[in-house]
Amino acid sequence: MAINNAKKIFDKVSAQAVLTEQSDLRQYLTGISTSFGYVLSDKAGTTFYTDPRYLEAAASALKGSDINVKLFQGPLENILKPYSEVAIPVSRTLFPDYMKLADLKLKIVDSTPAFTEAMAVKEEDELELIKKACEIADTAYIALLGRIKEGMSENEVAAELEYLMRKNGASGTSFETIVAFGENSSVPHHETGNRKLKFGDIVLIDFGCIYGGYCSDCTRTFLFGDDKTHSEFKQIYGHVLKAHMLAKERIHEGVTGREADGFAREYLREHNLDKYFTHSLGHGIGINVHEYPNLSPKSEAVLKNNMVFSDEPGVYFEGQFGIRIEDTVALKNGNVISLTDSDKKLTVI
Amino acid sequence: MAINNAKKIFDKVSAQAVLTEQSDLRQYLTGISTSFGYVLSDKAGTTFYTDPRYLEAAASALKGSDINVKLFQGPLENILKPYSEVAIPVSRTLFPDYMKLADLKLKIVDSTPAFTEAMAVKEEDELELIKKACEIADTAYIALLGRIKEGMSENEVAAELEYLMRKNGASGTSFETIVAFGENSSVPHHETGNRKLKFGDIVLIDFGCIYGGYCSDCTRTFLFGDDKTHSEFKQIYGHVLKAHMLAKERIHEGVTGREADGFAREYLREHNLDKYFTHSLGHGIGINVHEYPNLSPKSEAVLKNNMVFSDEPGVYFEGQFGIRIEDTVALKNGNVISLTDSDKKLTVI
Repeated sequence: MAINNAKKIFDKVSAQAVLTEQSDLRQYLTGISTSFGYVLSDKAGTTFYTDPRYLEAAASALKGSDINVKLFQGPLENILKPYSEVAIPVSRTLFPDYMKLADLKLKIVDSTPAFTEAMAVKEEDELELIKKACEIADTAYIALLGRIKEGMSENEVAAELEYLMRKNGASGTSFETIVAFGENSSVPHHETGNRKLKFGDIVLIDFGCIYGGYCSDCTRTFLFGDDKTHSEFKQIYGHVLKAHMLAKERIHEGVTGREADGFAREYLREHNLDKYFTHSLGHGIGINVHEYPNLSPKSEAVLKNNMVFSDEPGVYFEGQFGIRIEDTVALKNGNVISLTDSDKKLTVI
Repeated sequence: MAINNAKKIFDKVSAQAVLTEQSDLRQYLTGISTSFGYVLSDKAGTTFYTDPRYLEAAASALKGSDINVKLFQGPLENILKPYSEVAIPVSRTLFPDYMKLADLKLKIVDSTPAFTEAMAVKEEDELELIKKACEIADTAYIALLGRIKEGMSENEVAAELEYLMRKNGASGTSFETIVAFGENSSVPHHETGNRKLKFGDIVLIDFGCIYGGYCSDCTRTFLFGDDKTHSEFKQIYGHVLKAHMLAKERIHEGVTGREADGFAREYLREHNLDKYFTHSLGHGIGINVHEYPNLSPKSEAVLKNNMVFSDEPGVYFEGQFGIRIEDTVALKNGNVISLTDSDKKLTVI
């Protein structure tokens, strides 16, 4: 994958050289995770400059690829001497770094659009890594349901879930796991804490893991015992699930992010729930858990085959409860397929 | 803490207004973790502008503090109208964001030095959070030693350790846990994988957790059974430990990062090991696991009381083995105290 991606970006960008420093973009180009380095492509090929901490690991990982690995011996201008023009991701470049290149009298070209578009449309091997991250998350979630007991804290439930994902092969979480009990579910980004689980609590869990450098993202809302006080919750749950499913049915290749968001939002509006849907329908998922495209009321991004994104309508009633139902999905052959796919019918454990 | 830090930064920066967007700096100012928002301080006080996802949580966390919480209703220029001058952390600001402010004809002042210096010297409540993150890591490590079995993979050991930290109260890891068996320990930043543990293996574990938004960082190297082939390893282990201890003894308030690094490096040089010590002695630790000051051959940073940093000499013999011994330490009353403090005598389990 590393070989294709570096060449793909170079071919898309019209510049003598493409210089990339940002860690996620560097991972996209090299296929490996590092905390320091520069990837430099020109028409002769691609070189990954890194420091002694990563040299051995990078050389071994990229053996047999088209990417050369070299020790970075600064300053940066040394490796840029052959060029009068260089492409960098301007929107991701710090002001002092931009000025350093400008001071070298280099013509600066923006590689951001090339990265954004290329990273959004996944190669088959990237899809496989995301599928695997999703499978690990699904398996862990199902196992978790059998381990949740009254009196456990949100933190304990999160610890169990993260352990199960890690044991199933994840290298870590793709974001800080959200476990929210009862009224805490009304905070869309609740900070997992020490609230203890009680019979009859609503439970909202938003979780994801990383496999091979790629992310999954999934949310489930369920009941820990049915104390018969949840008729309103159950009714609204049905509406949120319907909004989630409508988006999956209606999203096809060529639909914009705005239209996609509208499929769910319009349905919720018909049931007077749209004002509680305080965020977007979804976001692209890949090396980063939030990336292009957005599925939001203002997004003109056009959805394409092999894009991966979330479908996550949610409604929140301050101080009472919240419901969010999220899958990581992909567009394949024009239609949406679910990559996370554990049961979404209202679960009572 | 939130109240003091926002005021502290505003007082250090000579500007009409201080605008902060970066998530770690935002956390430093507000005391809470968010993925979107602006903190704006002027002589009248501090306001945290965030989006609907965080509004309820932020308002509740900052109730009774001097920080107001408001819904951000863009564009950014709306909240900057009263000012002709604004301070931002220029070295942490993206080129397009800088240009947006410059286009508003605002005079731009750099808040980076104020943040760097203020964040390096911890308040007592910040030290307590770091101490707690270190205690959690120590406790988890000691419990882990009893759980390591022949045939476990590096990933399985990492999963156990992370679970133990999480169960003891950590909100997550402060970086990707490194577990390296045998020859893998020779790669300073080894990517934890599926290598299985064998009798007689050297084991290197570099791990840290987050508590209350603050990090710990610790490395231990030990033997999984003694197969009597490790006399060279044992001798060198003694030297690395001595270098680690010498740094702790000799670092005092007023020493520079370069001098601190030299205490360990010179000792290793006397034993012809300095060429295998391929990184710096240490780095500051706080909200970020790597922050100011550096303890490296080129660092002129002056170490001060209440700074927290790592002491981590390491030597690496390519394809054979590596040894790193690291504690998170603090300077208190002029001297170094260890915050992580599990046994560093060569352990054979």
